[in-house]
Amino acid sequence: MAARNAFYAQSGGVTAVINTTACAVIETARNHPDQIAKVYAGRDGIIGALTEDLIDTSRESAQDIARLRYTPGGAFGSCRYKLKSLEQSRAQYERLIEVFKAHDIGYFFYNGGNDSMDTAWKVSQLSAGLGYPLTCIGIPKTVDNDLPITDCCPGFGSVAKYVAVSMREAGYDVASMSKTSTKVFVLEVMGRHAGWITAACGLAGESESEPPHILLFPEVPFDEERFLARVKECVERYDYCTIGVSEGLLNKEGRLMSETGTRDAFGHAQLGGVGQIIAQLVKDKLGYKYHWALADYLQRSARHIASRTDVEQAYAVGKAAVELAVSGQTAVMPTIVRLSDSPYRWEIGTAQLKDVANVEKKMPRDFITDDGFGITAKCRAYLAPLIEGEDYPPYRNGLPHYVRLKNAAVPKKLSGTFKV
Amino acid sequence: MAARNAFYAQSGGVTAVINTTACAVIETARNHPDQIAKVYAGRDGIIGALTEDLIDTSRESAQDIARLRYTPGGAFGSCRYKLKSLEQSRAQYERLIEVFKAHDIGYFFYNGGNDSMDTAWKVSQLSAGLGYPLTCIGIPKTVDNDLPITDCCPGFGSVAKYVAVSMREAGYDVASMSKTSTKVFVLEVMGRHAGWITAACGLAGESESEPPHILLFPEVPFDEERFLARVKECVERYDYCTIGVSEGLLNKEGRLMSETGTRDAFGHAQLGGVGQIIAQLVKDKLGYKYHWALADYLQRSARHIASRTDVEQAYAVGKAAVELAVSGQTAVMPTIVRLSDSPYRWEIGTAQLKDVANVEKKMPRDFITDDGFGITAKCRAYLAPLIEGEDYPPYRNGLPHYVRLKNAAVPKKLSGTFKV
Repeated sequence: MAARNAFYAQSGGVTAVINTTACAVIETARNHPDQIAKVYAGRDGIIGALTEDLIDTSRESAQDIARLRYTPGGAFGSCRYKLKSLEQSRAQYERLIEVFKAHDIGYFFYNGGNDSMDTAWKVSQLSAGLGYPLTCIGIPKTVDNDLPITDCCPGFGSVAKYVAVSMREAGYDVASMSKTSTKVFVLEVMGRHAGWITAACGLAGESESEPPHILLFPEVPFDEERFLARVKECVERYDYCTIGVSEGLLNKEGRLMSETGTRDAFGHAQLGGVGQIIAQLVKDKLGYKYHWALADYLQRSARHIASRTDVEQAYAVGKAAVELAVSGQTAVMPTIVRLSDSPYRWEIGTAQLKDVANVEKKMPRDFITDDGFGITAKCRAYLAPLIEGEDYPPYRNGLPHYVRLKNAAVPKKLSGTFKV
Repeated sequence: MAARNAFYAQSGGVTAVINTTACAVIETARNHPDQIAKVYAGRDGIIGALTEDLIDTSRESAQDIARLRYTPGGAFGSCRYKLKSLEQSRAQYERLIEVFKAHDIGYFFYNGGNDSMDTAWKVSQLSAGLGYPLTCIGIPKTVDNDLPITDCCPGFGSVAKYVAVSMREAGYDVASMSKTSTKVFVLEVMGRHAGWITAACGLAGESESEPPHILLFPEVPFDEERFLARVKECVERYDYCTIGVSEGLLNKEGRLMSETGTRDAFGHAQLGGVGQIIAQLVKDKLGYKYHWALADYLQRSARHIASRTDVEQAYAVGKAAVELAVSGQTAVMPTIVRLSDSPYRWEIGTAQLKDVANVEKKMPRDFITDDGFGITAKCRAYLAPLIEGEDYPPYRNGLPHYVRLKNAAVPKKLSGTFKV
């Protein structure tokens, strides 16, 4: 059988290590020239496939592809663009197949989260139905760590490390100043529905007295009275109080504490600012001087402090994806399988896309302490290995020397345009 | 002459490298046992001297003192507490001398910014007037980089590196997502009166097209119309726009933008800092989706990404301070003297405290481009060497392994208390 081309796309919010996965996909594909001819990447993700805007990665040098390993962001562009059901979006799915057919694409690698695994699964169903042979492989990626089956999600470990390091460092700062200045410090972190990233803040401290003193999870409705009592207790005991809060914190009525009113393309509310609300509440009710930080994109792009474990896993899933494809599997996603906590050992496994699609993994309730303000030993045992190890990028002129690819377009073969 | 004790205090906002200076002071003092007996640190800065709450650093092992070199925050505590003029605060100055006398302190090392250099100078004047021999040395420290005479201030280089790295990384993220999601990203940084830190954001980009696209300096009153036009131009040209803004940005009337009192439809004060105000303005006027980050304490405590140049200079000024003291100088401050930009070469110089006290170094106007939105080549040449080199702390369990000292108290010798 002649070698066919592969299509690779990055989907949803990017991470510090999604390009590590891209690097692995391209490098591994280059090792299988008998089966995979060229890897085409979608410019701005799946939109690139719909609009036939493909990037020819064969135009990039081996050296530049290798540099993807340590470059944050999405090198080919990503998008928040969800294909709906086959019934609602049939034209889009058919368009994908049309473009793939025009460019002799026999492999579809989709690197994303829940929505993307759903899309990859639907594409695999449709290609089978249309009699167009297409190998469809999902590749896990999400800072939210909410994909099922896989023990963890590439991208999460590095955010976890960033927020834990940041919380520890800010804690040293606040502790120094508490006598006459800031008493309360709030760090707002990502995680709309699940408290994985909030929980990771908890790794910063090794004892009760160390920051963070309070975590506010999206899983635990905000109880103002109990929260303020705890803040007061911390300040009286330690002279300061540090708090990690999820952007997705809910009030007792189940509404977001912070909702700006705008929504993204998936209909998710745009979040940000609950840190300020919490901090101001402390100031108003207890009179403590506060500072707050909003990590926002810094947390998910911080390749300079990526977790080596995360980098290795991000590479491993990309490599495994290609190996699964060339071995004849389809409609699957490589997973991380944990073999032991300490010493941490893991291997690559495989999940069926249909089992992954649209299933959201929640944080277990027994990962949160009974009082709702901290993480349990069980949670710590789960999280700790994921931030192990550093993987520093090279520097030039004092700054990380990341790569910008040429991203040359593949000449179009289809006439007409497709409106996304 | 018998060896006398030394007093060391950290003052004002702490930095990623003020403990590096503390490390140098203590290590260098230990090398001069004939002149310096013990180094006592003020608990919570100068307040520790006023309240006779001294920390005996001789109780710390050489290994733990060495670990200060890479530990952020202020190991002995700092404070925002300014001694006023000799006339207004005479009792406080006299109390300092009383405590110093009780503990046979012959050396006063004060590690801080403008106010602290003023205090150190006044103490030197008073001790001379009272006939109490005291060697007074100021040691520069401020993320604001606003001390005169010294070419730069220890603490600034590491913040500069942090904001430049963060801006570069966030820029990679936003560029990936701009097709369907975030178009505008705003990073709010410190620097209330001078735009040094804002300028450092500008190091992230090496060409006009690279982030940051716009800088908003406290030196340049905010011009809404010109700003919005520039944002629009960037988004049209690059598909996204990244902005670094100083917390101290002023409006045309010279008032802080963060205090302009924007209110929502219900009359509630707009939450968030100037970064949010700027971002929301873009959203309201141009309709672009935004994200914003508030680095806050993360920027000045980020020892994990400290500038090696900054670390070396922070150590050098601490070492020089002790060497100046034991060589018989007083009422001076070691400075950084730049010998050349490229290759960067520097050496330690000396300034008179009276020339440093209360003088604020502004950023030269020719460091800002004519349009007010960027940095000039001259500015870049000044800033670039200050972020050169990395100086990673050791890690344990995936986190920087910082030290916490014992901070044992020196037994009090005076009766009665002193109210600060």
